[in-house]
Amino acid sequence: MKLRLAMIGGGPGAFIGAVHRIAAALDSLYELKAGAFSSDPTKSKAAGELLGLAPDRVYGSYQDLIAQEKARPAAERVQVIAIVTPNHQHFEPARLALESGFDVILDKPMTFSLAEAKQLQTVADASGRLLCLTHTYTGYPMVKQAREMLASNVLGPIRKAYVEYPQGWLSRPEEGGDNKQAAWRTDPAKSGIAGAMGDIGTHAFNLLEYVTGLEVVKLCADINTVVAGRRLDDDGAVLLKLSNGASAVLIATQIAAGEENNVKIRVYGDQGGLEWQQVDANTLQVKWLDKPTEIWRAGTGYVGAAAQHNTRTPSGHPEGYLEAFANLYRNFALCVLARDAGTLPPPEALDYPSIKEGVRGMAFIENVIASGRSTEKWTEFTV
Amino acid sequence: MKLRLAMIGGGPGAFIGAVHRIAAALDSLYELKAGAFSSDPTKSKAAGELLGLAPDRVYGSYQDLIAQEKARPAAERVQVIAIVTPNHQHFEPARLALESGFDVILDKPMTFSLAEAKQLQTVADASGRLLCLTHTYTGYPMVKQAREMLASNVLGPIRKAYVEYPQGWLSRPEEGGDNKQAAWRTDPAKSGIAGAMGDIGTHAFNLLEYVTGLEVVKLCADINTVVAGRRLDDDGAVLLKLSNGASAVLIATQIAAGEENNVKIRVYGDQGGLEWQQVDANTLQVKWLDKPTEIWRAGTGYVGAAAQHNTRTPSGHPEGYLEAFANLYRNFALCVLARDAGTLPPPEALDYPSIKEGVRGMAFIENVIASGRSTEKWTEFTV
Amino acid sequence: MKLRLAMIGGGPGAFIGAVHRIAAALDSLYELKAGAFSSDPTKSKAAGELLGLAPDRVYGSYQDLIAQEKARPAAERVQVIAIVTPNHQHFEPARLALESGFDVILDKPMTFSLAEAKQLQTVADASGRLLCLTHTYTGYPMVKQAREMLASNVLGPIRKAYVEYPQGWLSRPEEGGDNKQAAWRTDPAKSGIAGAMGDIGTHAFNLLEYVTGLEVVKLCADINTVVAGRRLDDDGAVLLKLSNGASAVLIATQIAAGEENNVKIRVYGDQGGLEWQQVDANTLQVKWLDKPTEIWRAGTGYVGAAAQHNTRTPSGHPEGYLEAFANLYRNFALCVLARDAGTLPPPEALDYPSIKEGVRGMAFIENVIASGRSTEKWTEFTV
Amino acid sequence: MKLRLAMIGGGPGAFIGAVHRIAAALDSLYELKAGAFSSDPTKSKAAGELLGLAPDRVYGSYQDLIAQEKARPAAERVQVIAIVTPNHQHFEPARLALESGFDVILDKPMTFSLAEAKQLQTVADASGRLLCLTHTYTGYPMVKQAREMLASNVLGPIRKAYVEYPQGWLSRPEEGGDNKQAAWRTDPAKSGIAGAMGDIGTHAFNLLEYVTGLEVVKLCADINTVVAGRRLDDDGAVLLKLSNGASAVLIATQIAAGEENNVKIRVYGDQGGLEWQQVDANTLQVKWLDKPTEIWRAGTGYVGAAAQHNTRTPSGHPEGYLEAFANLYRNFALCVLARDAGTLPPPEALDYPSIKEGVRGMAFIENVIASGRSTEKWTEFTV
Repeated sequence: MKLRLAMIGGGPGAFIGAVHRIAAALDSLYELKAGAFSSDPTKSKAAGELLGLAPDRVYGSYQDLIAQEKARPAAERVQVIAIVTPNHQHFEPARLALESGFDVILDKPMTFSLAEAKQLQTVADASGRLLCLTHTYTGYPMVKQAREMLASNVLGPIRKAYVEYPQGWLSRPEEGGDNKQAAWRTDPAKSGIAGAMGDIGTHAFNLLEYVTGLEVVKLCADINTVVAGRRLDDDGAVLLKLSNGASAVLIATQIAAGEENNVKIRVYGDQGGLEWQQVDANTLQVKWLDKPTEIWRAGTGYVGAAAQHNTRTPSGHPEGYLEAFANLYRNFALCVLARDAGTLPPPEALDYPSIKEGVRGMAFIENVIASGRSTEKWTEFTV
Repeated sequence: MKLRLAMIGGGPGAFIGAVHRIAAALDSLYELKAGAFSSDPTKSKAAGELLGLAPDRVYGSYQDLIAQEKARPAAERVQVIAIVTPNHQHFEPARLALESGFDVILDKPMTFSLAEAKQLQTVADASGRLLCLTHTYTGYPMVKQAREMLASNVLGPIRKAYVEYPQGWLSRPEEGGDNKQAAWRTDPAKSGIAGAMGDIGTHAFNLLEYVTGLEVVKLCADINTVVAGRRLDDDGAVLLKLSNGASAVLIATQIAAGEENNVKIRVYGDQGGLEWQQVDANTLQVKWLDKPTEIWRAGTGYVGAAAQHNTRTPSGHPEGYLEAFANLYRNFALCVLARDAGTLPPPEALDYPSIKEGVRGMAFIENVIASGRSTEKWTEFTV
Repeated sequence: MKLRLAMIGGGPGAFIGAVHRIAAALDSLYELKAGAFSSDPTKSKAAGELLGLAPDRVYGSYQDLIAQEKARPAAERVQVIAIVTPNHQHFEPARLALESGFDVILDKPMTFSLAEAKQLQTVADASGRLLCLTHTYTGYPMVKQAREMLASNVLGPIRKAYVEYPQGWLSRPEEGGDNKQAAWRTDPAKSGIAGAMGDIGTHAFNLLEYVTGLEVVKLCADINTVVAGRRLDDDGAVLLKLSNGASAVLIATQIAAGEENNVKIRVYGDQGGLEWQQVDANTLQVKWLDKPTEIWRAGTGYVGAAAQHNTRTPSGHPEGYLEAFANLYRNFALCVLARDAGTLPPPEALDYPSIKEGVRGMAFIENVIASGRSTEKWTEFTV
Repeated sequence: MKLRLAMIGGGPGAFIGAVHRIAAALDSLYELKAGAFSSDPTKSKAAGELLGLAPDRVYGSYQDLIAQEKARPAAERVQVIAIVTPNHQHFEPARLALESGFDVILDKPMTFSLAEAKQLQTVADASGRLLCLTHTYTGYPMVKQAREMLASNVLGPIRKAYVEYPQGWLSRPEEGGDNKQAAWRTDPAKSGIAGAMGDIGTHAFNLLEYVTGLEVVKLCADINTVVAGRRLDDDGAVLLKLSNGASAVLIATQIAAGEENNVKIRVYGDQGGLEWQQVDANTLQVKWLDKPTEIWRAGTGYVGAAAQHNTRTPSGHPEGYLEAFANLYRNFALCVLARDAGTLPPPEALDYPSIKEGVRGMAFIENVIASGRSTEKWTEFTV
């Protein structure tokens, strides 16, 4: 009944590995059955033991995992593989998994480079397998409500959007110490050409395109490395033009000392605006030209189908980051299960980030870094 | 590895049943193996199927469940039984489960009456089994932080506390319609002598005693039935005296139209005060006489051991109601597993609500309803 | 053009004296022309000089002020006398001023005792003069909006109200030091039989009756003196019954260490509720059973006549305590000027607290202190 | 004792005229004695009458006002002239007033063009008179606290700043109707080359330079006219480089439908950050890398000298926009009075916006509009 899940990377100690496991477990739609948690077989084995896996399902490399799971009987082999590794180790495992017939859940940004992303798109298209990219923020019910309201045009044509993602955790040169999270994220060999822009800028970009339903067509970026000695950007701000002619501003920084993780988006049509921020994730502010601002709340009877589908409790029971993440896992599972059963998933389940978002995210990284280096003001957003 | 779990009640459609299942699944410490989801065997069976249970582990009555599970081999039988039924069906299943050697997770209020609660205490003491009572709010990390700070005396001796739990969902006579939740909660035969005071007043009471570390010793209650025709109280306010001489106010209502579920507590010592509310659950406000209010946040490095133990993500990743509930399940599992392994659980895991809290909660119900009916001002809180 | 104003008490150093002067000046409707700022003639003279008054308009006693101002030509003598003294010095100056033909602005609570209050009512009725009692909080535009909405019944019949006024400034025995404000407020000879209940409890009581349009008919009070050695109450909580059968809770404390002055009121009808708090004074939250909470804002086009009349700037320009206080002064001036001109003031100007509110406030003090001492639970609210 | 004040422009109906009068009156430091409220003598006369001025002090033109007041005896003539006219009518009256020996209070932006601003600087320098430019937001006590804290380096060197000023009131083509405020602000002949950038962008720019103590040295602007047919910009976003190498983002828009006036600034050093916003004007959030965010509040004992000097009430009594505006008037009065008395004002009073800020504000307008039109990315900020 539950989808059998394997995990590549994400061993104990990796923040995001634990998040994936909770997201998979939360709705009892997956069962973790196998893993290659580390490229060090001893560490992988230890992790698997800690997680209660059968020893013969714990592998020393992703290649082994994919090959050996594929060799198992259909009723036993894992069905979905979650890849929870640094960026430079996304493409190869994902390609191999898809080509070997597995559905894939993949951390963002999708790959190490745009070229890889396009290649993966080709692979995925050919494979007939499904891929879910974990852009968490679009999993929040009130983000979905925002998208639905803008799509319905109740606020009028979009004119302006602001999206921001301020963090402070890289205010110091953390990468010099024991902080593994900081180390790989600031290492061009592992993270790619972007630091903050890849890590959180892509989230902001994805959120912007998701909520507005528009595409970025031009941009002008100020990209900075604030902490001395750091090898990648840790701060940036971007002026944007959207496909309908509206303009936008994107802010992402990891050196805003004292900030946690307060993703926030504001979008304005000609009749009113919307505001959502992660720190108050169950609320969507809806603002109007001539009447009171409304506080729309997750779990109420008046929210739309998308928000309802992605909430587990009635209003007044705050849901958070893990539930948003679990919404990705749940929707993906519903689609995989429906496909396997030859049925249709609930329409709301189709809404999870995938290859297309991954390609655009990688294009964002390359465009924004190029713009940051350019003396030209506006550059076209190319994919 | 995982604790094998059975559930009595909580079939699909029951809000709190789903909450229990998510809480059990979230940390991969339990596996749902059996259930008696309804006293109607057909419904129970359907529920078990939907939940993917083996048909022979789905029972038509709690008696069958307990008897037949007990008869299974030790390695197979369930270890923990969660009881998720209306109040009048708490005592018998709990008693039987404990006496049959199972550990028990039980919805609050613990029983139908204080007499039953005391009886259950005797049973539990004799059984050597563990019991977890799901007073969710004490599972929040920043509630634990509040308790820890007050215990450390950093704010000085407690002088005043306010606890409130305003809801609006019973503003209309919902029990007249299809609302099952409303129907049993307003039915004296199922709920007991109290409505709002039992359903949410006990939560507020438990939160007050938990956070302050003090006991209520006297009370003076205004208990009302606001909606015409309702058979139990739906609103109340209580003046309280605490064991150290401090005074407090407890508010609980289900007819505050437009309110969701905003549990809130404020406690003041002679040096400062604390404020926590569920709508901003990851924050604890710490107020001081002569310096700025501080915003303590879950997941940060500066919170205490209790808060850290009960958080899964770094600060800036909001956790909510389901995680708080899951904290109860997790701590209980750690204690059960440690006992079974002959080891000691992490000290923080010992902190989950149990029999003692259940007895005091039932005493609260009886005392508060009696006070509401009394013409005497202050009445002693008796157990 | 401007009303000529005299002030009794309120010399430099007295917080509330400065507030009165700003409130009087803000709309250019008053001109401070005379004063008896202290019972010490030297101090009074110094204060008058600092305030730029003509020396012959600065008096050594209120008796002198009233007598000599009365003796001046009509075109020169002051028209309104503001009395800004401790409670025990309210009645005599107010009586004398009214009987001498002056209109009076008077600090709350109105008098030292209920008996005095009733006497003053008789005096005022006989005098034909007007009196404004400075219950500041009813001067806020969004408090008036709340009253207007409840009166219009859009939220349905009132069922429950909560009003609270937590302060922390008397958490220590301030009266032992240099704090004059603390000294007289905790001195029964100057403050009357109540401390916190008189100082801020009366504000909360007034706000409750003003916003709901209902009267308190029964009460049950827990009145405490928390700080050792203090001679009057510094903390209390009161259960209340209102004239339409609804119940309410009133909280007022001066020992909530770390709290500033956050007056807050919540009122619930059967269709929804209202919430206003001073810390966000330009906002009124309007909550509904089945639709989003609305954020009504001062200065917008959609608020009612009362709120509009009592706001000076468009929305987005926060107004505060001084403007609320000035609204009392302005409305009073409009009424005095209209009366003197034989015209009618704008209807909204008629809404300022006066004798009736003062008598009820003093009745509150006596009733609440009596209830606090009583072993009876509910006592009738008598005037 | 009070400074005699004249007003040019600002007749009844003009929002900002009333604000100036309240600001002048609030602390009883000014007395409005004369005015040229409109270029239409009949309207000016009517306005003067309404305001209770002597008919012979109400003039039909600013030239008459200045000439005739200058001709009056020193003890009678006005001392300070407030100029409250659209931008194209700032320079001439200000020049004439300064050259005629009057101190001047002037609305922002200072002039119609940068050239005029520089000319006015020369005039002012030569005149020996003082000039106050009404950049309201720097009058807020907690904005001053922010500046003081950053100057003290307690948060470390500044690395990043965000300032924003979103409004929604020009979301529709209001200038086509009766809205005078909209009409002149969108008319290049009256407003100058900028619309939103001049009206509110200059406020944001001033706030940024004031709080950080840094100067903008480079910029890259996206300037838009969103509403069809509008003749000036109504929206913009600007990337900035500051004199210490830090970067910043400035957002100002008048088409964010549903927004009021929520000026907000955030500044980050390497140890922490600050956040202030007008909607919660009495609060300054102080954020730290490794400890709880602090909520600094106006009127408390722990704020610095600048904040204390610019607050009138103890904490818990919210002050707002009018008080901030009045702080400019008050500080300016203290400086004028001290100069006239040959004494020194309190050091805190010296802190009001003046010519220098006006010149930089006009330079901002010209630089930002030029950058908006440029295809070059970064342009130097030139004055």
